[in-house]
Amino acid sequence: MTMSEPGELGAIRSGLDRAAAGREMHELASELYPICRSITGAGLRATLDALGRRLPLERHRVESGARVFDWTIPPEWNIREAWIRDPRGEKVVDFAHHNLHVVNYSVPVHARMSLDALRGHLHTLPDRPHWIPYRTSYYQPTWGFCLEHARAERLVPGEYEVKIDATLADGQLDWAELVLPGETRDEVLFSCHACHPSLANDNLSSLAVATALAKLLQHARRRYTYRFLFIPGTIGAIAWLAANEQRVHAIRHGLVLACLGDPGPFTWKRSRGGDRPIDRIVEFVLRGSGRKWEARPFTPYGYDERQYNSPGFDLPVGRLTRTPNGEYPEYHTSADDLSLIRPDALADSLDMLLRVVEVIEGDRVYLNTQPKCEPQLGRRGLYGALGGLPDPGARSLAMLWVLNLSDGRHSLLDIAERAELPFDLVRETAALLEAHELLRPAAPEA
Amino acid sequence: MTMSEPGELGAIRSGLDRAAAGREMHELASELYPICRSITGAGLRATLDALGRRLPLERHRVESGARVFDWTIPPEWNIREAWIRDPRGEKVVDFAHHNLHVVNYSVPVHARMSLDALRGHLHTLPDRPHWIPYRTSYYQPTWGFCLEHARAERLVPGEYEVKIDATLADGQLDWAELVLPGETRDEVLFSCHACHPSLANDNLSSLAVATALAKLLQHARRRYTYRFLFIPGTIGAIAWLAANEQRVHAIRHGLVLACLGDPGPFTWKRSRGGDRPIDRIVEFVLRGSGRKWEARPFTPYGYDERQYNSPGFDLPVGRLTRTPNGEYPEYHTSADDLSLIRPDALADSLDMLLRVVEVIEGDRVYLNTQPKCEPQLGRRGLYGALGGLPDPGARSLAMLWVLNLSDGRHSLLDIAERAELPFDLVRETAALLEAHELLRPAAPEA
Amino acid sequence: MTMSEPGELGAIRSGLDRAAAGREMHELASELYPICRSITGAGLRATLDALGRRLPLERHRVESGARVFDWTIPPEWNIREAWIRDPRGEKVVDFAHHNLHVVNYSVPVHARMSLDALRGHLHTLPDRPHWIPYRTSYYQPTWGFCLEHARAERLVPGEYEVKIDATLADGQLDWAELVLPGETRDEVLFSCHACHPSLANDNLSSLAVATALAKLLQHARRRYTYRFLFIPGTIGAIAWLAANEQRVHAIRHGLVLACLGDPGPFTWKRSRGGDRPIDRIVEFVLRGSGRKWEARPFTPYGYDERQYNSPGFDLPVGRLTRTPNGEYPEYHTSADDLSLIRPDALADSLDMLLRVVEVIEGDRVYLNTQPKCEPQLGRRGLYGALGGLPDPGARSLAMLWVLNLSDGRHSLLDIAERAELPFDLVRETAALLEAHELLRPAAPEA
Repeated sequence: MTMSEPGELGAIRSGLDRAAAGREMHELASELYPICRSITGAGLRATLDALGRRLPLERHRVESGARVFDWTIPPEWNIREAWIRDPRGEKVVDFAHHNLHVVNYSVPVHARMSLDALRGHLHTLPDRPHWIPYRTSYYQPTWGFCLEHARAERLVPGEYEVKIDATLADGQLDWAELVLPGETRDEVLFSCHACHPSLANDNLSSLAVATALAKLLQHARRRYTYRFLFIPGTIGAIAWLAANEQRVHAIRHGLVLACLGDPGPFTWKRSRGGDRPIDRIVEFVLRGSGRKWEARPFTPYGYDERQYNSPGFDLPVGRLTRTPNGEYPEYHTSADDLSLIRPDALADSLDMLLRVVEVIEGDRVYLNTQPKCEPQLGRRGLYGALGGLPDPGARSLAMLWVLNLSDGRHSLLDIAERAELPFDLVRETAALLEAHELLRPAAPEA
Repeated sequence: MTMSEPGELGAIRSGLDRAAAGREMHELASELYPICRSITGAGLRATLDALGRRLPLERHRVESGARVFDWTIPPEWNIREAWIRDPRGEKVVDFAHHNLHVVNYSVPVHARMSLDALRGHLHTLPDRPHWIPYRTSYYQPTWGFCLEHARAERLVPGEYEVKIDATLADGQLDWAELVLPGETRDEVLFSCHACHPSLANDNLSSLAVATALAKLLQHARRRYTYRFLFIPGTIGAIAWLAANEQRVHAIRHGLVLACLGDPGPFTWKRSRGGDRPIDRIVEFVLRGSGRKWEARPFTPYGYDERQYNSPGFDLPVGRLTRTPNGEYPEYHTSADDLSLIRPDALADSLDMLLRVVEVIEGDRVYLNTQPKCEPQLGRRGLYGALGGLPDPGARSLAMLWVLNLSDGRHSLLDIAERAELPFDLVRETAALLEAHELLRPAAPEA
Repeated sequence: MTMSEPGELGAIRSGLDRAAAGREMHELASELYPICRSITGAGLRATLDALGRRLPLERHRVESGARVFDWTIPPEWNIREAWIRDPRGEKVVDFAHHNLHVVNYSVPVHARMSLDALRGHLHTLPDRPHWIPYRTSYYQPTWGFCLEHARAERLVPGEYEVKIDATLADGQLDWAELVLPGETRDEVLFSCHACHPSLANDNLSSLAVATALAKLLQHARRRYTYRFLFIPGTIGAIAWLAANEQRVHAIRHGLVLACLGDPGPFTWKRSRGGDRPIDRIVEFVLRGSGRKWEARPFTPYGYDERQYNSPGFDLPVGRLTRTPNGEYPEYHTSADDLSLIRPDALADSLDMLLRVVEVIEGDRVYLNTQPKCEPQLGRRGLYGALGGLPDPGARSLAMLWVLNLSDGRHSLLDIAERAELPFDLVRETAALLEAHELLRPAAPEA
């Protein structure tokens, strides 16, 4: 029966044990949290390996030094240890205690220097004296340490010994992807950055949510092909686009996922065009959630939507977060830890993405087969027998809407938006009318 | 003189004795109120006969059993008597007292039964215990009685005798129409349903207003052809559309009229397209009325706008009511009686429709014959002699607006909307400028 | 370097001594104030002579009696003296004391008459009893005096002697213009009326501001050709349009200037189209000023925008004023004197026009030469070395915006509007990116 196809997804969602799913996602984030990730190196590979134990991922690589559009793949960075010893020889900062203590991509150093000279390499947050900031220097060869401002304030004058035992050497940039083929080659893209070390909301939350979503979609009947990307930020998206330049035309809808574990309201950052189908779909779903949410125009700063929306690609890709980057105080600090992300928020994000996928899968255009006047629903048992009541009831009204607007120019989403009805109800109504031969698809499907 | 043509309509409106017109419309409603109408049968014919004594109506019929699009014309329903006798033999419900006491289109019945068995056939309004509801069952063969909830509560246990002496037999569906030909074959449609028994606002009010409007338009010079339909709801509109399928392309503007006798503010329900000329015209007139009013988007539930706006027709037809169906407590109950409709409200509805017709008739596109710079209005005596005053005066300003926007792309309605001037003033100004050869019609008229 | 071209204008503006400029403009208005101007005659010529001592103006004339579109150039009006003597022989009104005392374009008269007969020729402002109104009668042969209402109230009965020693004779209509050629023949038009006698804000203010602007633009590098018109109102604009009918297609942007000396907020009256580039430019500049301002739709009443926006021309011309005509109490009265216009308001108007010209000159369309993904700004030294900061900084963000939107469909103004960034920053950013070969002009410039 026609209803069963999209219905499967709805059944998957309604059958989901949200508490268990939330716990499982939080556990994945907890497993990944201690790894020192970067845009290259062993930590990134260990992360992709962990995801690969849950999903049949394809692994890809590009060699250091390769050109990807205007960029060059940097040398691979790996780090073993890093510390600062104070004049008494005590380790006052130690990478072994927190991955954020080292400026990511620091060049190796082993030296003695005065506190004054050292201070030029220290990064702190004076306003948040107990948090360690997250800093990087991927493309400028330098080194540095990040630490709590309160700790930096307590450093005594004298000679310090600093050591960063890291390597920057020929290697590779890694990423992983999962393609779930559907009835058509048209693609839905989910893209997450996987390069941040020991930051939970940014972006272990989305790795966990995307993994859970992919696991569910593996078992769903799919009209679209789904592509999940787990890539280093910026350079990874650029490398992927360079490698897939001939393929991106198949992307019909795309979502960059980030910061999906905090309890804040959802924020949709629109595609560059602002009115692509994915913008309408996500905003329709958020509007229907009955909760606080926000849509914002595209800006060229943020996550990998920057690359997907560059003018030479201009892909229909927006970005879903809860509280966006830079707008929660813990952002890019050690306080973005496992306590910031909540199992229920992760489950809620998963649920919202399933709803988005349900609209993507279920939206299509039908033609009313009896377009001149209303068909007689009553003799088909589709309409209340008793007349004169002031209100036709939600189901009858949905039938009238679907029949009235199924003229080849309105999709089910158009109808749901205009009628202010839940997508589910509209889709189920269309299936019912199709079963009664009052609707037929507007065009044969591939 | 050019001004005289549309001016006649304005003269008709300004010469109208509103008090007399209101009384006359209320008297027509009072004459029709006692008749037991339905979508077929003698009551409907008696109603059309009464209208036919006021207007030279054409009568049409379709036989029972005929197919009209997806529907079949039902058997004709006629009723002689109907009552319920209580265990003591007393008539506790009697159709002779109120037409609403019988579910419209009830099948005949003569039986004895317990109160419990009877209750399955009784319809009441628990929230409005002294009102009789209006219920129908046109397409499901059943029978029933409607009564005051308070009366139903007082029924004592025991054996009841029920009788409905009605027939459902081969016959016909009737309607009436009036066509007032104009200079062009382009049509303006007014459509009223005429099938409701003993309900005053829904819809004797509109039968009365449409009759009064048609009588006035009979004596007006008409650019458009006007078509008035007095039809049974739903099946009548479907039958009319089926019979006139090749003709409806001529409909340029259409209004379904209903609920025009209560004192509530006007409500315009837009056409399915939402921006057809009739939508702009009616909203312009309502906006200019200086009173409370409302425009609402199309929905596929309501009166016969449902059929005219079905996707296979998509006609430019909206609906004018005062308080809409289902939004006043008396709707579809015995309280929708002659006291609910007011002569002054009926007169006010007639006035509003005349204003709408004035815009329909008067709107056209002119060309400024001196489009480069302003023409010198002063030497034609069209402009104040003394310069330097801070304000040109309303009439001069209207001239400047009409001249400035008469570029072939703006109609007089466009100009009135943009200049926020009354349509009358703009139309009269255009006539004056045309008389001075500063304007000419944009295209020859048929 | 590319930046230098539009930068020159910015340097001119930032180098402007606003206090000195304000004083100089007020002095010019003071010099012109005593002259009795009209739409023709010696006063108009004296005014154009005074402007010609500051700018290399071209002078133009049309003979009395010539046809200009629908109009005829009127005879030239000149006046020597005019007075009213009361029954005691005292001059109770004397043109020698104020130019406004005579209805402009009065026919000559020398007569004796009663006070009652005289009153038909007297114009006063009962609500403003100490102000003299400004009245004209260019095209109706009549005569009259304007005076303070309080003075008119004190006139005693008896025989009055009136004399207006004026001539209406064959002559000419004069105007002056200045053309500052630019790299292209595309024109920017500034138009001021120069016909009002002894009225400061309306319109000596704009003659002064336009003169100052023209002097500054003489020394600027110009992409556009600038045309300044100093013309009598209405008939002068009509005469200019008639003489330049084949040339007006070159006008890309136009501003009518008036009432620029009072301290009120700026008011932009949009072009007839409402969305021409000049509308967007001026509104962008006003929005960016951080001060109160207003944009209004076009109306066909006002100054010479009426003629430029007549349907046969429909030029992209709006109007910049501070408080508009008719909206300040002193408008068209003797109270619109030199105290109403302020040096700082004049300087502020000049500054605003310079900012408008900067956008006109600086706006253009670029193409991102690396449109696929972001270019690597860091290796060009264009991006902060340290990553992880929550905010990229205004300059980096401007670069990202310009790169993202430079797809051939967005001009720098489009980018500044969408990014809500100052035009200066966007233009300078574009120049920087062009210098780094990350942008190139979308099309070769003429």
